[in-house]
Amino acid sequence: MDLSEKTLTSRLVYDGGLLKVYYDTVELVNGRTSWREIIRHPGAVVMVPVDGEGNVYLERQFRYPYHRVVVEVPAGKLEWGEDPNDASRRELKEEIGAEAARWDDLGEMLPTPGYSDELQHVYLARGLSFGDTHPDEDEFLDVFRVPFEEALDMAADGRIQDCKTIAALYRAARFMGRERDG
Amino acid sequence: MDLSEKTLTSRLVYDGGLLKVYYDTVELVNGRTSWREIIRHPGAVVMVPVDGEGNVYLERQFRYPYHRVVVEVPAGKLEWGEDPNDASRRELKEEIGAEAARWDDLGEMLPTPGYSDELQHVYLARGLSFGDTHPDEDEFLDVFRVPFEEALDMAADGRIQDCKTIAALYRAARFMGRERDG
Repeated sequence: MDLSEKTLTSRLVYDGGLLKVYYDTVELVNGRTSWREIIRHPGAVVMVPVDGEGNVYLERQFRYPYHRVVVEVPAGKLEWGEDPNDASRRELKEEIGAEAARWDDLGEMLPTPGYSDELQHVYLARGLSFGDTHPDEDEFLDVFRVPFEEALDMAADGRIQDCKTIAALYRAARFMGRERDG
Repeated sequence: MDLSEKTLTSRLVYDGGLLKVYYDTVELVNGRTSWREIIRHPGAVVMVPVDGEGNVYLERQFRYPYHRVVVEVPAGKLEWGEDPNDASRRELKEEIGAEAARWDDLGEMLPTPGYSDELQHVYLARGLSFGDTHPDEDEFLDVFRVPFEEALDMAADGRIQDCKTIAALYRAARFMGRERDG
C-alpha cells in the first residue's frame, strides 16, 4: 500500500528565533486535499556518556515548557547543516566538560513524527577525559552520574521521563550487551 | 541549586489548527532576561498492545514531516482536557480495532522537553479482542504484529526509529519482566 502524501503548497507561517512553522497543503492517499502543520528543525545529537567504572552521566535541567527539572542525557541542537559527529563532540564538551576517545553510533531516532522533522543522532561516548565545562552562558545544568544499571531502572520506573533518554539508554544497553556476548 | 525560570510575559504568536506557539519572556537563574518559544500541546496516549501469543501490534504510517513511512506503536493526541484513560481506549479502538481487558499504566514520557509541553501517557494493553477498525477518515494506517522480542530487537537495531515506540517497548519489557520474576 502506497501511504505517501504529495505536497501541494508550503508556506512559512511562523518564523521564530527557534521554531520555524510551515503550513502545507497535501494530497492524501484517497486523493482528497488536506493540510499539515509542521516544525522544521535542524536536528539534534544525543549522547550516552559512560565512564570506565560503568557510570552514565546525566543532567538535571529546568525545562521551561513543563516548568520543572527534567533528567536527561546530554543532548543538543545542530547548527543548520552541521555534521552530527562534530556536534556530538562539541555538545559533550559544552555540557559535561568531557572528551570521549571512543564513539559508537547508535542510530537515529524521531522524537515527534506527527509535527516535527527533528532527527536525533544517538551516540555512545566512552573513554571519557574531563576538562573544564564550557556551557552556553544562558544554559544551567546540574550534571551527575549514576551506575548505568541504575539509570536503566530510572528509565523503567518513571524517575526518568525524557523520551530520548529512555530510548538512548535502552539502545546503549543493547549495544554494550552485544559487545559482552561477542 | 534552584534552576527554575520565571515567566515575565507570554504571547500566543501562532494559533494554528494543530500547533499553538507561544513566545514567552523569562527571568533566568542568573537574573538575566531571555525568551522561550514553545508549543502548547494537549498531550497524547501511547499504547503497547500485546496479545495472548506475545505479539505486539505496530503500525506503519506515512509521516509527513519526514516524508517517509514510520513504524510506531498505536498512539493519539488527547482532546483538550480529555482523560488519558478514556483516550487510550478510544485510540486503541480507532487505530487497531481492539478492546483491551487489562490496562497497565507505564507512566509518563516527555518527547521534546526543549520546545513543547507535550506529555505522553503510556499504557500496556492486554487481553485484546478485535472488532472493526474505526480510523479517522483521513488517517491511513497499515497495522501488523510481530513477536514482542522481535520488536525489542527492531528498537535496538534501528528498524524502529520512533522515539516513543522505543521507550514504550522498553518500559513494557521491564514491566512484563517484573511480572514474570514475581
